[in-house]
Amino acid sequence: MTPSDLDRLIQFLAKLPGLGPRSARRAALHLLKKRESLMLPLAEALNATAASVRPCPVCGNLDTVEPCAICTDPKRDASVICVVEDVADLWALERGGAYKGRYHVLGGTLSALDGIGPDQLAIAGLVTRAAGGVKEIILATGATVDGQTTSHYIADRLAQLPVSVTRLAHGVPVGGELDYLDDGTLATAMKARRPV
Amino acid sequence: MTPSDLDRLIQFLAKLPGLGPRSARRAALHLLKKRESLMLPLAEALNATAASVRPCPVCGNLDTVEPCAICTDPKRDASVICVVEDVADLWALERGGAYKGRYHVLGGTLSALDGIGPDQLAIAGLVTRAAGGVKEIILATGATVDGQTTSHYIADRLAQLPVSVTRLAHGVPVGGELDYLDDGTLATAMKARRPV
Repeated sequence: MTPSDLDRLIQFLAKLPGLGPRSARRAALHLLKKRESLMLPLAEALNATAASVRPCPVCGNLDTVEPCAICTDPKRDASVICVVEDVADLWALERGGAYKGRYHVLGGTLSALDGIGPDQLAIAGLVTRAAGGVKEIILATGATVDGQTTSHYIADRLAQLPVSVTRLAHGVPVGGELDYLDDGTLATAMKARRPV
Repeated sequence: MTPSDLDRLIQFLAKLPGLGPRSARRAALHLLKKRESLMLPLAEALNATAASVRPCPVCGNLDTVEPCAICTDPKRDASVICVVEDVADLWALERGGAYKGRYHVLGGTLSALDGIGPDQLAIAGLVTRAAGGVKEIILATGATVDGQTTSHYIADRLAQLPVSVTRLAHGVPVGGELDYLDDGTLATAMKARRPV
């Protein structure tokens, strides 16, 4: 019934996270209605980004220059490295704007279930960087079981190096109501309480 | 922080229905991870579809040929026209597979609030088609206030022509539980009850 070009477009759109087959059809119709203002520019932006954006060989961030703009920024503190699971986490920390050091993107977490070991992640590169005059490594992996396992593993690997290894604070999210928080977070926040 | 090509891609993705700024960022990262298998093919599919798919001059369906495959299919009944609001509705009816006539896509509904009058919709074309040897016009606009208003307006416009005008049955959806149905649907289903 629907022509093959359109079918193919819908199939590709349905592979995007957040879009299923039904919303991919809706997106395809929306694109066809905005041919000049959205459909062709989107195709052009996809091609341009695919051609220009590459992972940084130093930290794993995505950028159009190698090494990336963060790795070469002289205003950022080269002696602190924040270790994150994914580029999305790096973007989230950059949006926060509270961190002015450099990053290291692991590319995932250790996971026995998915068969992801230390060699599949950018851990060797991190150890090399840590040995080269870095003062502090901040472990900012997720507060999930896999994230924490990865964090512990990296801390062990860095133990013999002269760097201090820290992790993000756990506690009550800013703006969060106690009533809606899980028991684990509340217990951690209580244990880690600080003088006012 | 993020390079401009990537920013532009995220902005375009965020304009798709079903994607906001956050999920657009996630989609962009997903695309960059699947550069060869998804990102470039999607760009190619967008360009190919934009170049090949056009609205049918007869019924308004989207297809690569003019008139569309449904309008030229000799196996379909040319004496019945099903009137739908949008191409998405046409696709939904085709997926159902219960209808073997032709279609007429209005391109929306009459709406005083949005300033959409009969001239903005493909109603004149429908009246012309209805006058040319058509036996039945099925009004399949949505069961919303605007959809039903549009339906009534079209029925009025077709009143003097020798065609029978019908509408889709209203009632309990197949697989639906009475407990979860709204009062209006239940009342309609009760009034339109049929012998077993």
